[in-house]
Amino acid sequence: MSLTSEEVVTGGNDPSADWSRDEHQGELLGPQRTSTAAVRESARLAKFHVPEIVFGPGSLTELGHCGLRLGGRRPFLVTDPGLMAAGWADEAVAHLRRAGLRPVVWSDITPNPKDHEVQGGYERYVESGCDVIVGVGGGSVIDAAKGVAILSGNGGRILDYEGVDRVVQPIPPTVMVPSTSGTGADVSQFAVITDTTAHIKITIVSRTLVPDISVIDPRLLTTMPPWLNAATGLDALTHAIEAFVSRAHNPLTDMHALHAVELIMGNLLRTQLEPRDFGARLAMAQAALHAGMAFTNAILGATHAMSHQVGGLLDAPHGVVNGVLLPHVIRFNAEAWPDRFVALGAAAGLPTQGVPAYEVAAGLADLVRALADDVGVPKGLASLGVVEGDVPVLARTTLKDACMATNPRLVELRDVETLFREAL
Amino acid sequence: MSLTSEEVVTGGNDPSADWSRDEHQGELLGPQRTSTAAVRESARLAKFHVPEIVFGPGSLTELGHCGLRLGGRRPFLVTDPGLMAAGWADEAVAHLRRAGLRPVVWSDITPNPKDHEVQGGYERYVESGCDVIVGVGGGSVIDAAKGVAILSGNGGRILDYEGVDRVVQPIPPTVMVPSTSGTGADVSQFAVITDTTAHIKITIVSRTLVPDISVIDPRLLTTMPPWLNAATGLDALTHAIEAFVSRAHNPLTDMHALHAVELIMGNLLRTQLEPRDFGARLAMAQAALHAGMAFTNAILGATHAMSHQVGGLLDAPHGVVNGVLLPHVIRFNAEAWPDRFVALGAAAGLPTQGVPAYEVAAGLADLVRALADDVGVPKGLASLGVVEGDVPVLARTTLKDACMATNPRLVELRDVETLFREAL
Ligand SMILES: [Fe+2]
Ligand SMILES: [Fe+2]
Repeated sequence: MSLTSEEVVTGGNDPSADWSRDEHQGELLGPQRTSTAAVRESARLAKFHVPEIVFGPGSLTELGHCGLRLGGRRPFLVTDPGLMAAGWADEAVAHLRRAGLRPVVWSDITPNPKDHEVQGGYERYVESGCDVIVGVGGGSVIDAAKGVAILSGNGGRILDYEGVDRVVQPIPPTVMVPSTSGTGADVSQFAVITDTTAHIKITIVSRTLVPDISVIDPRLLTTMPPWLNAATGLDALTHAIEAFVSRAHNPLTDMHALHAVELIMGNLLRTQLEPRDFGARLAMAQAALHAGMAFTNAILGATHAMSHQVGGLLDAPHGVVNGVLLPHVIRFNAEAWPDRFVALGAAAGLPTQGVPAYEVAAGLADLVRALADDVGVPKGLASLGVVEGDVPVLARTTLKDACMATNPRLVELRDVETLFREAL
Repeated sequence: MSLTSEEVVTGGNDPSADWSRDEHQGELLGPQRTSTAAVRESARLAKFHVPEIVFGPGSLTELGHCGLRLGGRRPFLVTDPGLMAAGWADEAVAHLRRAGLRPVVWSDITPNPKDHEVQGGYERYVESGCDVIVGVGGGSVIDAAKGVAILSGNGGRILDYEGVDRVVQPIPPTVMVPSTSGTGADVSQFAVITDTTAHIKITIVSRTLVPDISVIDPRLLTTMPPWLNAATGLDALTHAIEAFVSRAHNPLTDMHALHAVELIMGNLLRTQLEPRDFGARLAMAQAALHAGMAFTNAILGATHAMSHQVGGLLDAPHGVVNGVLLPHVIRFNAEAWPDRFVALGAAAGLPTQGVPAYEVAAGLADLVRALADDVGVPKGLASLGVVEGDVPVLARTTLKDACMATNPRLVELRDVETLFREAL
């Protein structure tokens, strides 16, 4: 899968570029420019596109109003058995009904949603005559809801939409209610679906996938099992760190990325140790939102490119795989571009005054690994089932992943193999 | 004009409230809650709604693509004679045509757009069979463009839509290109129109007024006259400070407000002294964007409530009036709620360690006045033409302004009269 540079590499080639230190400094550009200049500038444009956000304890009560505002009458509520057991699907249905809407519930999905599950959801959507899609759940539920939305607007098979901007027709309006903190799927332009024939995860990137409204109610986080809280929290940390060093970062995404790192480092462990501390839950909900706003616009890097391949092979929790890989990728990227890691280290609480940039980066990698240890993530990929013999195939498919284009350091096949072996 | 508390006072009554220090701390809320609790919580929800942003030197080249993406074929380009003379309207037309669109240009507007001008624009829009509205200009142009959009979707007279949520029907898609840094009109849910019969400015608040796309090209800032740069820069500073202390602030708006204050304090004067320093222009474009993202969601306060009345009476530049009033309102609010001003003072570069909160606030007021002096804003309203005899009427209408509901300190008629007299 390849990326068009127009869509993804909006930050240009210098991973440390920002608006205040660029080639235009000290230069005034008038209305008359050459078209070459226009093209060069266009590559430096910052894009920032996020859903409308409703955030806070009790925000789920707004769901009916949101559905109505989007012109819905018959919402297609995508959720899963866990959310139903916890009572959140029922509460969502009640709020939708109270607003006069007639929801249809669909929950035939598994973690890491499969191509055939999305197809099944689409058929149910069409049968039911629905007109707005509501996802209540974790990243898998939200990605499945996006998949159903794509087919509803565009027809065909879900795997046809792999890559950037293959979704051409408008999709039905969407409202997402995340139950983890988090995958960021409720704010992002991404959907990840498992191709059950090729045993890989495909990534669909389209601005149409940015939900219309994200309703973030931190109450929903309180019913996550601890392992899922740990996994999704490390996923959010990976989003923030990869977005900050991405080639497509910009000052707007930077601000969100740094704030996410600060909140996660200060609160993720506490949500594990003191699951009833609602302040820490709120902070993690906010952190996941910031990380999502950062990465949907700045895109990601090698950690996610590698993680997607492991996820396709093993059906392993995405955030756990990221937690294992991230420290290795931080060290690898920092060898080439240590400077960008200084602000990340500072946000994580590390001393940075007078410390060489690479040391700050290595300290950040250690801190991430220590947090992964504290929340119970295994040391290596081997414990998840990856074996030495998988490395060559994993490395080859990694290079084709959408997230590789924005990694700050150029990555070769050999590098990916080394990174996988170090992380075994 | 009155506000519904549901729409505006989303932050509750404690102006220092945020998500991490609230009544839910230490408490887990399950799916079963009483409806009283639901209502109480709903008052604390944070709403965050901003346009899709395209930012950077040369972003105007994206205008045609933006129009196409919104389904337009015949854009109604709202601009003014100054923008036409500077060449930006022609450049915008060229980009729209290059994308295959057939724009119609309308520029019959004056600063502080008038009710009858909006009516005229609407008639031209209908005659021309346009389908998307593009505003290229300052706050007046963008507010006029929003006015035309309201009438196009809803009919009636523009003054009928004064207040909150009176715009019920959808409006045509909008793309705004600001030429100042800035009024924030290109990101906000507000439009301010002059009622030429009553000689007041009316404020229209509606989520439908948040533009679909804001294209922020800092090149456009280079053709502003210096007085307009000063006025709009002080307007942006007022947005950031009023949004940060607003009763409806939340952690998302706080982050944008503080970043705006930092950028304006560090760059506004430089854009006056060194108009060809493009780095400072970029920083001010970014600052105006942050301030806009903050105030459209957190709303404003007494400075804007007072300023709107002066603007209705005198047709004076909005930002200049704000610059005169803001230091007085900071001191007034800080007498009751000094603590919120500490973070603002720090963002402005003031020492805060061990300094009493009120002193930080007073220091901030002094800094704002010094900046106003440096950029050439008069000391008092008298130089703008306000006389002692205007004060009682100005004060009375101030209390009815939409922005008063979110001022952190309760304001009585007597207080407003005193503030106006101090600012004369
Ligand atoms: Fe992820
Ligand atoms: Fe303003």
